[in-house]
Amino acid sequence: MATTPATTDETQSSRVQAVFDDIRRTRGSDFINAFWRHLAFDPALLESTWAEAKRTMVAPSALDPLTKELIYIAVSVANGCSYCVHSHTAAARAKGMTEAQHADLLAVIGLAGKTNHLATALQVPVDPVFDISPDTLRP
Amino acid sequence: MATTPATTDETQSSRVQAVFDDIRRTRGSDFINAFWRHLAFDPALLESTWAEAKRTMVAPSALDPLTKELIYIAVSVANGCSYCVHSHTAAARAKGMTEAQHADLLAVIGLAGKTNHLATALQVPVDPVFDISPDTLRP
Amino acid sequence: MATTPATTDETQSSRVQAVFDDIRRTRGSDFINAFWRHLAFDPALLESTWAEAKRTMVAPSALDPLTKELIYIAVSVANGCSYCVHSHTAAARAKGMTEAQHADLLAVIGLAGKTNHLATALQVPVDPVFDISPDTLRP
Amino acid sequence: MATTPATTDETQSSRVQAVFDDIRRTRGSDFINAFWRHLAFDPALLESTWAEAKRTMVAPSALDPLTKELIYIAVSVANGCSYCVHSHTAAARAKGMTEAQHADLLAVIGLAGKTNHLATALQVPVDPVFDISPDTLRP
Amino acid sequence: MATTPATTDETQSSRVQAVFDDIRRTRGSDFINAFWRHLAFDPALLESTWAEAKRTMVAPSALDPLTKELIYIAVSVANGCSYCVHSHTAAARAKGMTEAQHADLLAVIGLAGKTNHLATALQVPVDPVFDISPDTLRP
Amino acid sequence: MATTPATTDETQSSRVQAVFDDIRRTRGSDFINAFWRHLAFDPALLESTWAEAKRTMVAPSALDPLTKELIYIAVSVANGCSYCVHSHTAAARAKGMTEAQHADLLAVIGLAGKTNHLATALQVPVDPVFDISPDTLRP
Repeated sequence: MATTPATTDETQSSRVQAVFDDIRRTRGSDFINAFWRHLAFDPALLESTWAEAKRTMVAPSALDPLTKELIYIAVSVANGCSYCVHSHTAAARAKGMTEAQHADLLAVIGLAGKTNHLATALQVPVDPVFDISPDTLRP
Repeated sequence: MATTPATTDETQSSRVQAVFDDIRRTRGSDFINAFWRHLAFDPALLESTWAEAKRTMVAPSALDPLTKELIYIAVSVANGCSYCVHSHTAAARAKGMTEAQHADLLAVIGLAGKTNHLATALQVPVDPVFDISPDTLRP
Repeated sequence: MATTPATTDETQSSRVQAVFDDIRRTRGSDFINAFWRHLAFDPALLESTWAEAKRTMVAPSALDPLTKELIYIAVSVANGCSYCVHSHTAAARAKGMTEAQHADLLAVIGLAGKTNHLATALQVPVDPVFDISPDTLRP
Repeated sequence: MATTPATTDETQSSRVQAVFDDIRRTRGSDFINAFWRHLAFDPALLESTWAEAKRTMVAPSALDPLTKELIYIAVSVANGCSYCVHSHTAAARAKGMTEAQHADLLAVIGLAGKTNHLATALQVPVDPVFDISPDTLRP
Repeated sequence: MATTPATTDETQSSRVQAVFDDIRRTRGSDFINAFWRHLAFDPALLESTWAEAKRTMVAPSALDPLTKELIYIAVSVANGCSYCVHSHTAAARAKGMTEAQHADLLAVIGLAGKTNHLATALQVPVDPVFDISPDTLRP
Repeated sequence: MATTPATTDETQSSRVQAVFDDIRRTRGSDFINAFWRHLAFDPALLESTWAEAKRTMVAPSALDPLTKELIYIAVSVANGCSYCVHSHTAAARAKGMTEAQHADLLAVIGLAGKTNHLATALQVPVDPVFDISPDTLRP
């Protein structure tokens, strides 16, 4: 039960078709997960969101693909996005996340969740030493 | 301005002293950041929280120390914990985070923040393929 | 599966009955959605919450009814309230939200979700120009 | 620096004056904290919010006043509301919260923050035994 | 549908068995709820989390057991953790929470949720009077 | 105090210069607010984020510019993004938001914040009537 209908292969327009084709080609799989099918109710939003996801998560960058999935899961957990936790945990597994890494991920997320709450409850003032002087960082 | 007073080197009890000593020894630095000084109003909470932080973030584990800091930052951003974002961004830099990795981290966090909101707005149903069968995972 | 039982037409007290009658009269519909049925376990909380909802969302005010529903959805998405996203998306449709407006709403929510995360990750200081001088605003 | 100007004793209208008078009378103090002064830019919102706060937090009810403040702090911490954490921690102290109770409060908030994150990361299914049968609860 | 398999009595290791035994002994019940069964995919995380939960929620402390459950529920609601809301509402009932106390809890949570949003929307500056001088608090 | 240095007109690269020029041209103002100056530490992230903001908030679409700002504020408040609340409240004023509309916005945000918490505390099941049949919506 969603707030927009899922776009099926039968109902999609050519703009949606082009994005679905690119998702399949990029992932080397015929499967299109429900997020993209429901987002497809608006072809422009589908196009721009997929382009950003592909650029950020798939294209080579300073962080490796698995690390990026772990960061994605961390944000999704803190935001309480059930769908995103499921889909990106599956993606992390597909990219090689071991059970020990999954356990480590959860330990860090749990600790951060706890200390975030403690720091907010304490209203800890930021230490001046954490400041970034433009001179030291961008000489 | 915090909700508990900061414990200084002069006011601390021997239980707090022992934790501060261990923080200094573990980090190889004399500096104790404000989070621990304000948490020290309760020695038991200070002890257990530091023990968990040391075990999770410092002890060798399946994920490397920098990756764990990036995950910590991701959770802290999503939870809106200003102090934690500052302290762990500084910690990630100290552990070697480059400017390119910082930019990559922010790109992933921004994308996840966006798609978390979209998936929640769409109320996307979880794809059955994401299900974990106990048989396949724990044979 | 909820944490309080749903109050049915058979089990409701006269205080609950009066609120249900007013909901039906106000909306011109016999249907009482589950939020009110579960909240009815406490008649006082039901009364005050419905009174506030009616005053804020139904009574004429500076913003039109559809705009108020869009704002409601935006808050509910950011707070991750699944039920609220469903019920207020349905309410927005009933008040005339078009598919193009729905797409626009999601684009803004997605962008805000992303830039909220980026601004928090960057810990951007507030520009002094955003300040409100009492002299300029309340002469 | 706020998004609305603070209403001072000089600028307030008679509607605002009446609420400020009631706040002073109810609390037995001349001090009006900034929340009410900034909310006063809209007298109707000030009136209804104060009425709800007085009814919920001040009037005798099933939970004692200090317990209600602790619950208020817990919500405010999880929502990251800095102002609210400060004002309600001060209110809890004024109502007798001891340092040991404060420490206990933080330990529970920290644990809940942690296990909330873990349960979401695990996507734990709700145990059927937690279900509430209307028959057992409202006979 | 979870992201880790549930550990059953048949598949558990001796480390997990020891924790499950302690949970059963501590609670005086044979039932192990799903949170612990799914967390058990990592015995170390299970052990440390249960130890913290037992120390914080079960051992005698400055706050009584029911008050601690109410605080736990408040955090879980604000964090949107569905599982936690269910399990700790059941726990609060088991510890004697009355229907009137449940209603009172929800009234406070609802009010705090509302004023948290208002204070953040107003960006209310913290009143200097809320400041804690170390001299007054730790003489 | 931010986690990246602000890019000034003196230190910016030609890629950043091009974005700053476009921001100035689009807004008809010489002022560049701090969000863009701090995001400019990564020219690629600056370019893509500004492009999305311009496309979503400035280009004509199904919702008018002021309504989009109100939605933006609503998300920012619920996410607790202090900078974003300030900058978009100022933007809404610049686009004509009246004091009465501001008060109405806050009343809706406050109500939604409250009922989001209540619906989550109650774990209200979604009414089947809110379901969207693909047949009715996309004939």
